[in-house]
Amino acid sequence: MNVYLDNNATTPLDPEAREAMLPFLDEKFGNPNSLHAYGSATHKPLQNALDSLYESLNAANEDDIIITSCATESNNWVMKSIFFDQIFGGERKKIIISGVEHPAIVASAEFLTRFGVEVVKLPVDSNGLCSESDLEAVIDDKTALVSIMWANNETGMIFDVAKFADIAHAYGALFHTDATQAVGKIAVNLKRVDVDLLSFSAHKFHGPKGVGGLFIRKGIELSPLFNGGEHMGGRRSGTLNVAGIVGMGVALTNAVKFMDFENSHVRRLRDKLEDEILTIKDTFVVGERERRVPNTILASIKGVEGEAMLWDLNRAGIGASTGSACASEALESNPIMEAIGADDDLAHTALRLSLSRFNTEAEVDYAANEIKKAAQRLRAISSSYAEN
Amino acid sequence: MNVYLDNNATTPLDPEAREAMLPFLDEKFGNPNSLHAYGSATHKPLQNALDSLYESLNAANEDDIIITSCATESNNWVMKSIFFDQIFGGERKKIIISGVEHPAIVASAEFLTRFGVEVVKLPVDSNGLCSESDLEAVIDDKTALVSIMWANNETGMIFDVAKFADIAHAYGALFHTDATQAVGKIAVNLKRVDVDLLSFSAHKFHGPKGVGGLFIRKGIELSPLFNGGEHMGGRRSGTLNVAGIVGMGVALTNAVKFMDFENSHVRRLRDKLEDEILTIKDTFVVGERERRVPNTILASIKGVEGEAMLWDLNRAGIGASTGSACASEALESNPIMEAIGADDDLAHTALRLSLSRFNTEAEVDYAANEIKKAAQRLRAISSSYAEN
Repeated sequence: MNVYLDNNATTPLDPEAREAMLPFLDEKFGNPNSLHAYGSATHKPLQNALDSLYESLNAANEDDIIITSCATESNNWVMKSIFFDQIFGGERKKIIISGVEHPAIVASAEFLTRFGVEVVKLPVDSNGLCSESDLEAVIDDKTALVSIMWANNETGMIFDVAKFADIAHAYGALFHTDATQAVGKIAVNLKRVDVDLLSFSAHKFHGPKGVGGLFIRKGIELSPLFNGGEHMGGRRSGTLNVAGIVGMGVALTNAVKFMDFENSHVRRLRDKLEDEILTIKDTFVVGERERRVPNTILASIKGVEGEAMLWDLNRAGIGASTGSACASEALESNPIMEAIGADDDLAHTALRLSLSRFNTEAEVDYAANEIKKAAQRLRAISSSYAEN
Repeated sequence: MNVYLDNNATTPLDPEAREAMLPFLDEKFGNPNSLHAYGSATHKPLQNALDSLYESLNAANEDDIIITSCATESNNWVMKSIFFDQIFGGERKKIIISGVEHPAIVASAEFLTRFGVEVVKLPVDSNGLCSESDLEAVIDDKTALVSIMWANNETGMIFDVAKFADIAHAYGALFHTDATQAVGKIAVNLKRVDVDLLSFSAHKFHGPKGVGGLFIRKGIELSPLFNGGEHMGGRRSGTLNVAGIVGMGVALTNAVKFMDFENSHVRRLRDKLEDEILTIKDTFVVGERERRVPNTILASIKGVEGEAMLWDLNRAGIGASTGSACASEALESNPIMEAIGADDDLAHTALRLSLSRFNTEAEVDYAANEIKKAAQRLRAISSSYAEN
């Protein structure tokens, strides 16, 4: 049986999104900026896709949702344009991020330290969350930007971004959230949560790879990262990836349509899988279950090296991960495990399982059984676990 | 009859490229960074695609070809990272560009003037080309970057980038070329032409929209525009757009395979169409024919407003443009016509026709006839032309 449990790394493309994309890889190939029928054939489908994004995120008409190539672009756009717009020659030189941000936030913020930017990382508790008081302790009127993710990519833990945004605004700082792991999984209502900037990526909610977006609230100035022609109202140049945008629109509409299902069916499967894993002795899962997105488990099985587990699971047809795919080439210990203060011997045991609405109960039962078998086999040959 | 003559704006997707892409929009959806079979199923196709790019551009193994989302990203990457790497806090603060660069170069360079960068634009002659002596006159040891396009998007005129690169290097400056309109149309041999950096976009050579690249010669340092995970050797983060990359590889391989055909068949059709247009009285075409890429015509038909011509052609099923699609929403006069010093009354008469290997002789004959009919009709109702 083939079971894909790595949906926080990327997702299978929604078949309806794929169908909607195909004409734009074929006869509807025009450049939307062109003044002829080939170009204008793309206008209505693009408008529909943008309408889907506004509706799905409950953005106001006056807000901007700008199409990018992925959340990594959106995140880098925010960091670099805040540098150009505010930090360069200005008084505010501090950027505050959580201690568990995605590498695109951590590395783009750290890049700026070469140019006089101070980057402050907030500590996280054993749930992998940072607190309002920790933000209050370091924010000041020299802070240009606070960037805290909506949901963590490894643990699935949900941050109370509304409260962090209010604190940022009280100090005159902008608030950005990397919502890549929230959009399409839980309600993201931009009329209720006062974030200034929000990043997302289509391929995390069954849309295509190579397309994402940045929400920019009405009135927020942000220089383009891509200067050039007057695409997207002058905020992001480059010929529009029509097929990708159309696919993203359909995928997000469907993800929102299935959100109750995500919160019931996917959550139930996730909880069942988690309960099965927790029957393995000396095992824990990071973060309170109720405070996580419905699809994610970050487990630690003592004495079982994460990569060894992946190898066994892969042979059984199961795709999982030890943490962020964006850092997985390095084969380092899981940074979340370090951030929450796990012992060294646990930091290499991380196993992330992330479900989607396309998973079935039979798949979860099969995966639970294979994980137990692998844990038993690997512990039997583990010198470190036997010693204890 | 439907005739698409706007291939410098975008191209129909090569059917073989589309076929190659489809599995990656379906069952082969894995993230290449993932450590399981879903991820590794993408490795060989991605490697093949990259090999195609290296081979098609004759890049050395030690050089880097980094995948981006489009040439606009590549161009902005060069400009902004040169700022961060060299200009900020350094001695070299000058960027020299040609006077006819694409908006992505002009606007990204001009963006940097706010931060102490001096941008110098080289004048162009009646062919729309700039000269080595013009570059020699303004370059100095304070120059960080020279960026001159390989072929112009509106005229199709080919710049002698090898000579400009040599001049830049003599002054210790980096040389970048926006080769978006050259790659796939004429030979681009990176072992013969000593550019440091080169941008390209797949959708200009029958590849998909939303994917492009930046060539970075061995030894050239350039900070990432997208910081984050260790994708592309740490030079450009973000989950790889596997379908797009695979499609780009096939499209470029085929474009190079058909280059002789482009230079014979497409050139012959282009010349035939051009000859027909030149039979219209008071008409000229910008730039010597032999010095252009084989597919492009920028014509001026006196007394015939470009947009009016497009409208008539569009009704006849023909897609053309008045110039760059990236600037066409503005409906301004054609900037190339201004740059070459055309009279005001000619600056609004630009008509760009750009062919591809998918055009037929029957299409060209039909288009020539429709252009003549439209010119006649529009001149009959033109007060300005009647006056002369």
